[in-house]
Amino acid sequence: MPPVPVAAARNIKSVAESLNKKMKLSVKGFKAAAVKAGIRQRERLDLGLIYSEVPASAAGVFTTSVVKAAPVVLGREKIKKGRAQAIVVNSSIANACTGTEGLEKARAVARLAAANLNIPPDLVQVSSTGVIGEQLDFACFNDNMAGLVAGMGAENFSLVAKAMMTTDTVEKISVRQLEISDRKVKILGLAKGAGMIMPNMATMLCFVVTDANITPECLQLMLEKGVEQSFNRITVDGDTSTNDTVLLLANAMAGNKQLKKPDRQEAKKFQQSLDELLKELALKIVADGEGATKLVTVRVRGAGNRRDAERAARTVANSPLVKTACYGEDPNWGRIIAALGRSGINFNPEQVDILFDEVQMVRDGLGLAENENQAAEVLRQNEFTINIDLKDGSAAEEIYTCDFSNDYIKINADYRT
Amino acid sequence: MPPVPVAAARNIKSVAESLNKKMKLSVKGFKAAAVKAGIRQRERLDLGLIYSEVPASAAGVFTTSVVKAAPVVLGREKIKKGRAQAIVVNSSIANACTGTEGLEKARAVARLAAANLNIPPDLVQVSSTGVIGEQLDFACFNDNMAGLVAGMGAENFSLVAKAMMTTDTVEKISVRQLEISDRKVKILGLAKGAGMIMPNMATMLCFVVTDANITPECLQLMLEKGVEQSFNRITVDGDTSTNDTVLLLANAMAGNKQLKKPDRQEAKKFQQSLDELLKELALKIVADGEGATKLVTVRVRGAGNRRDAERAARTVANSPLVKTACYGEDPNWGRIIAALGRSGINFNPEQVDILFDEVQMVRDGLGLAENENQAAEVLRQNEFTINIDLKDGSAAEEIYTCDFSNDYIKINADYRT
Repeated sequence: MPPVPVAAARNIKSVAESLNKKMKLSVKGFKAAAVKAGIRQRERLDLGLIYSEVPASAAGVFTTSVVKAAPVVLGREKIKKGRAQAIVVNSSIANACTGTEGLEKARAVARLAAANLNIPPDLVQVSSTGVIGEQLDFACFNDNMAGLVAGMGAENFSLVAKAMMTTDTVEKISVRQLEISDRKVKILGLAKGAGMIMPNMATMLCFVVTDANITPECLQLMLEKGVEQSFNRITVDGDTSTNDTVLLLANAMAGNKQLKKPDRQEAKKFQQSLDELLKELALKIVADGEGATKLVTVRVRGAGNRRDAERAARTVANSPLVKTACYGEDPNWGRIIAALGRSGINFNPEQVDILFDEVQMVRDGLGLAENENQAAEVLRQNEFTINIDLKDGSAAEEIYTCDFSNDYIKINADYRT
Repeated sequence: MPPVPVAAARNIKSVAESLNKKMKLSVKGFKAAAVKAGIRQRERLDLGLIYSEVPASAAGVFTTSVVKAAPVVLGREKIKKGRAQAIVVNSSIANACTGTEGLEKARAVARLAAANLNIPPDLVQVSSTGVIGEQLDFACFNDNMAGLVAGMGAENFSLVAKAMMTTDTVEKISVRQLEISDRKVKILGLAKGAGMIMPNMATMLCFVVTDANITPECLQLMLEKGVEQSFNRITVDGDTSTNDTVLLLANAMAGNKQLKKPDRQEAKKFQQSLDELLKELALKIVADGEGATKLVTVRVRGAGNRRDAERAARTVANSPLVKTACYGEDPNWGRIIAALGRSGINFNPEQVDILFDEVQMVRDGLGLAENENQAAEVLRQNEFTINIDLKDGSAAEEIYTCDFSNDYIKINADYRT
């Protein structure tokens, strides 16, 4: 995969804007809208709609948490048919831990949207993010659905991205264009999520639409593969919220020859663009992590197998001590090696190398004090990589994380009250 | 086990003092001393010594980290003989990730102490805590060992407790007295550690001395049992440092009939006192957690088995979101149920109850909004319990944690530099 342009915390907004200027944020046959429905606060966009003029192939990936929000319970059922035509999303209230009443409300929202769009309720996916344990007020949806549908436009996706936000500070949109069987194909993705730390307030939601022609089965395999190397590389220590959802709709309006098998060449082209787009959105989530000031890649190589590499990288990326050291711009490699030591994998501490970007700080398990100033320079950047070589095999994995700042505590100690 | 008096962050010091007044901090046949050796900073106690007039039965439990500090490598070897007569402990430098040179220095310190005490080097345990990756300056030990030995006294244990501290804010000492075969027996323990989060700067060290007569084999079994229910209940998510060490020396000077089997009645009496003492020290570590303002017990009951109960309690106790909510005094039960959901255990979310102390906040998976003010009252205390009932079985476990405050970030972002 070619290197993906990475958005650092402080300039992520400008990255989104520059994409915006280069490529229209629209996909053939799709429309979008968002309104202020007053779900928990007045005067903010909190209800969004994505609609395809024709039924689309649909794929979905949902939280693995035992505690599943009502829209996730419903969405998992609906996605089995492999078809969808609309997505309704609200922020402010997650509709999680809301029992039978919550599930009934999720169903009612789908029926309401279906009636207003004149399509079957089975083709409407609903998605929610926000506070756990509060019931949605159906009136907010009922009073606003007609206006939402009336307001649909081909270039309104950034409004939906805004309506999905909770503690996010910027909306997250990515777009890719490619050619499949001589037809131009576009992929557009929206994401929300304010950190790598599973917050009940920062559910990870991502909706991707494309005009490519792809069978539902092929689409599902491609989505799962893409998510594995993107969103599943930014969560920490298996952290997942009650509402995590990624949906991908493909409406075939580009007119390409239908993709049926992920391993064929044209499908691989689509997969590559999809992977890039998902990774870009995933990195935007990390860069916008709650209180984050730095985007940190933890790369472990020389592991005996990929599972060990991932486990080691995840433990380092998840360590509050490593994350606070990143915030403090302190190349405190002892914390990295201590995290490796408790990660549960087997390795020889006396042959470990650690580099900050290209600056070597540890050789064969021993610190190189003479390089400390140079390493501190690396940590002063908005983005850097912690390179770890276990010299024990040839497997490698990367995990993306951010630093841990005072603002994280502020945001999470004060959020709800 | 009777309820153990728990020391909250803000008054832990007074608890230590009150114990001090009630019972002499000494044990027959043991002496202690500490000096300012200038290991990394001038003008602070950083080198301590514990000595038994006669060789004692010895037991030890060490870090499970793959990365083991030099004194741990050495200590694990020495403890196999089941005998020890002295413990040398230094703070400021952990002697971890220091290679052959570090191991040789640990050996040299043991030889030096042995020569000054006129005992075999095999009977000297050494222990270190502090920064990883720096070499000890042997001169600090060489210049100060004679003075250390000369300064030994029967009531100097609090000086050693001080000399062990790194980011700790108070020294941690506990003492117990009991009778075994009509002889008075005392147990005295010192601990250091500044939090439940595995910090390379906050190694957990604990040294316990007793005048009881116990075989090394029996002592080892008792120590392992005690540690399991105390120190292994405060670490979070398997977090362990490179230096974690618990040592227990029993010099037999109380003259009781020797304890040989942990399951005999007299041995059980000792075990109970030892358990209480270790739990008290463990709680003192949590209460003095880096930046902690609250001591929180997470109790999970109604689990299918104890392993599940522990895993669930540990995930909740380890969640930065639960910990920041505790700091914010916000009874945000959604974060608790979300943590349970991703803990990896199987349960039915629709039958979960959650109580803050005795105030029920969740019944059968649904929130009781009417109790929120009362629950917030509970969280305003320095100490409280999060009670979780999975109603799925009869197993229960407790994990002890603290809240997550701005000061944690400050302490860990700035510590080394």
